[in-house]
Amino acid sequence: MGEVDTKGVVLLDFWVSPFGQRCRIALAEKGVEYEYREEENLLGDKSPLLLESNPVHKKVPVLIHDGKAVCESLIIVQYIDESWPHRAPLLPADPYARAHARFWADFIDKKIYECGTRLWKLKGEGHSAAKEEFTGILKLLEGELGDKKYFAGDAFGFVDVALVPFVCWFYSFETYAGFSIEELAPKLVAWGKRCMERESVAKTLSDPHKVFEFVGVLKKRFGVE
Amino acid sequence: MGEVDTKGVVLLDFWVSPFGQRCRIALAEKGVEYEYREEENLLGDKSPLLLESNPVHKKVPVLIHDGKAVCESLIIVQYIDESWPHRAPLLPADPYARAHARFWADFIDKKIYECGTRLWKLKGEGHSAAKEEFTGILKLLEGELGDKKYFAGDAFGFVDVALVPFVCWFYSFETYAGFSIEELAPKLVAWGKRCMERESVAKTLSDPHKVFEFVGVLKKRFGVE
Repeated sequence: MGEVDTKGVVLLDFWVSPFGQRCRIALAEKGVEYEYREEENLLGDKSPLLLESNPVHKKVPVLIHDGKAVCESLIIVQYIDESWPHRAPLLPADPYARAHARFWADFIDKKIYECGTRLWKLKGEGHSAAKEEFTGILKLLEGELGDKKYFAGDAFGFVDVALVPFVCWFYSFETYAGFSIEELAPKLVAWGKRCMERESVAKTLSDPHKVFEFVGVLKKRFGVE
Repeated sequence: MGEVDTKGVVLLDFWVSPFGQRCRIALAEKGVEYEYREEENLLGDKSPLLLESNPVHKKVPVLIHDGKAVCESLIIVQYIDESWPHRAPLLPADPYARAHARFWADFIDKKIYECGTRLWKLKGEGHSAAKEEFTGILKLLEGELGDKKYFAGDAFGFVDVALVPFVCWFYSFETYAGFSIEELAPKLVAWGKRCMERESVAKTLSDPHKVFEFVGVLKKRFGVE
């Protein structure tokens, strides 16, 4: 994470990225004004600013704050939470509650995108295994959410921010998996709708049909029929 | 992370685990007394307590504090830092410095063990690719460390805790890679020796030759010649 010549708050992002959407939601919850810069890094060239500000991973999202770059979405969300603590705390104060939230955000980080990608990329046994694994992931998240309003209880928080961008990918996942997420995890789907009542989420999440079109572009790019 | 019937501080761990060693070093830095419970989970059965306290990943290390289980080593180290803040702070106070430390700890987490495993597991092209990638990882860490005493400067901290357990795996990595880590990353090797001057590290790290023997057991277990 290097120093770049950019003042204020800038987000290097890509519209459909669930990782970028986490940062946009956190910034919106905090009421932070920022400049959004679209980077088509999944399909095209990477800008010099992206390469300079994330030389290790060369990926969006990158948050640049007063010329300093912060990379990796969950680290960015924690940075936003710690830099603008005056409003909408995302992590609780209690160490155990913080560890619990970090555990589930980490679980989401490690599992959903990778397993979801196998749903549209693979055929045959690989596809069946991905479908079974994705079902297990949904069941675990459904169990953890339970009858709570949000993952941490009554307040929208870190785990919600980590997971909710994937709600606009659900249509693509279930279309390629051939299952209904509403049938497998009805509480999770209801939670997604509750989150969409928040302005921070509603104005950030991509249209599920545009995400589906984008997955179609990815499939062509990777030569998947 | 569920509730288990265990009071005080208990660490479920496996002697050679670099992830478990992170937790042991953090607890030693903080001067926390705890009960160590050896779990031979890499090679044998998992105890009911491990399965109950980490039902999602079913892996060591798990820290159980007053009956509450915390899982995933970097989350455990942050939990230890936040629960015993009176001494040896591992993460700095400044949000950007915290994000910077989290970035490098995350980089170490994602790269070293996975790439190091490919060094002893693979042959041919896969082995060459792992060797090249591991060299790149070492160079990045060498560059980030630079001429500093520890990764964050003068104080032993989060990134040091995340990385130093791998120092006792270096002998295995370089033997299977056929390179000298001291030649590739001399500052990193000197840093490892400085860390070994700390009691918390010296009493925790495994003997590199015992790690090498253990990797030999793993190779047999996975049918790798």
